[in-house]
Amino acid sequence: MATRYVWQQIRDQLTDDIRTGRYPIGQRLPTEAQLSTRFAVNRHTVRRAMAELAAEGLIRVRQGAGAEVVQPRLNYRVGQRTRFTDNVAGLQRKGEKRIVVSETRPAEPHIARTLKLRSGASVHQIETLAEIDGQPFAYTRSSFPAARLPELRTAFADTLSVTASLQACGVPGYRRLWTEVTADWVEGPIARHLGGSASGHDTAQGRVAVLHTIALNIEDPSPQGSGQPAKGAAIEYCEAFFRADLAALRIEH
Amino acid sequence: MATRYVWQQIRDQLTDDIRTGRYPIGQRLPTEAQLSTRFAVNRHTVRRAMAELAAEGLIRVRQGAGAEVVQPRLNYRVGQRTRFTDNVAGLQRKGEKRIVVSETRPAEPHIARTLKLRSGASVHQIETLAEIDGQPFAYTRSSFPAARLPELRTAFADTLSVTASLQACGVPGYRRLWTEVTADWVEGPIARHLGGSASGHDTAQGRVAVLHTIALNIEDPSPQGSGQPAKGAAIEYCEAFFRADLAALRIEH
Repeated sequence: MATRYVWQQIRDQLTDDIRTGRYPIGQRLPTEAQLSTRFAVNRHTVRRAMAELAAEGLIRVRQGAGAEVVQPRLNYRVGQRTRFTDNVAGLQRKGEKRIVVSETRPAEPHIARTLKLRSGASVHQIETLAEIDGQPFAYTRSSFPAARLPELRTAFADTLSVTASLQACGVPGYRRLWTEVTADWVEGPIARHLGGSASGHDTAQGRVAVLHTIALNIEDPSPQGSGQPAKGAAIEYCEAFFRADLAALRIEH
Repeated sequence: MATRYVWQQIRDQLTDDIRTGRYPIGQRLPTEAQLSTRFAVNRHTVRRAMAELAAEGLIRVRQGAGAEVVQPRLNYRVGQRTRFTDNVAGLQRKGEKRIVVSETRPAEPHIARTLKLRSGASVHQIETLAEIDGQPFAYTRSSFPAARLPELRTAFADTLSVTASLQACGVPGYRRLWTEVTADWVEGPIARHLGGSASGHDTAQGRVAVLHTIALNIEDPSPQGSGQPAKGAAIEYCEAFFRADLAALRIEH
């Protein structure tokens, strides 16, 4: 059996204390001096255990203000094939998605340009709120070329899945071409949907801190000899606003 | 010649006005009503031009507070082979990097684990501040296995380049295996290095909003028959703090 160092034992004990609610989210941990006394070790050993908890995202240590227990972030995988359902399954958490907006409208110019549509062409715009374990996690706004996918909104209402509704519209596969990521604030309706207990919620201004992604999805190239173009057409312009306090994006290169 | 719509002409004129300093960064644009008068068009046309400027990141439109001119974000490419020098060259901006810290010390436990070093093994830790056009842009902290790369700090001091100093230490190539991205705040010394005029600078708390990345770089697999292991060893644990108001990460999948 591998030796467990004292600092590891303390780390594990504190992890248990956090998981079981002895130190709930939002609360401050006891000071280093108090923990030294509790575990009958020197401060250096306590500090090492705390550094580990911080690296694992269970606590946040602030200069001069001690350590605060924080909600661990969800590692959301982003790759060529990123699916909300798969991601949530991987996290072993309960995910739900609901439609907030579903409409067909002229594409905004930058969206038309990215999707390579003529100016003013229609897109289906579908906005959803994703919750994990009952907590708002991400607000997503997707635009799909309407002429190419006339039945998409119906299919999406039935399935709540981009993958399944694209398949229903004759697009068997798609992949992500690029993703742009910024750290931002949102206001107005999206902030209200995401708000709740967000620790990045600036209540005075009604803003919520988000990790903001814009991604372009294209059809998978068709099999050779199918008579379809080899390079896939743009099929979805997808903008997502993840709660900054809850989400970490994990990119596998 | 392609027709330029009226809204496009207004967009281009306003872009020029911003670039030439008629509307400097941080200033509010005139109201829709004022711009309608200036260009002798209806508000719908003005609004469309403004939506474009917002999509291009030149202005930020806030509900009820008008449009503010913002510094356009730098699109920083993140792929398997991401190099600061290449990125800055691609941006046609002037980039500089300087060493803030260079030391050899025992690896923190989570870094040792990620680099697959035994607990307490030494790493070279190099911290740099990158500026673009004279403005603090990113603070980077890299950890390299010291036993594997004894001369790395000397090589880095000579070259200021990770790629060149790894080559000098006998690592001809490397690539990024994964990147984790969060939206965060930094405090203390890093905040002071990045601070300056950051629009995400919370002066009351001394915090700066950042796009925070952690990445693992591994040696490129050696050529077959070289007698080296096929799967590259972990060679750099790299943490970067990009100013949230200045940086956008662009991931090509």
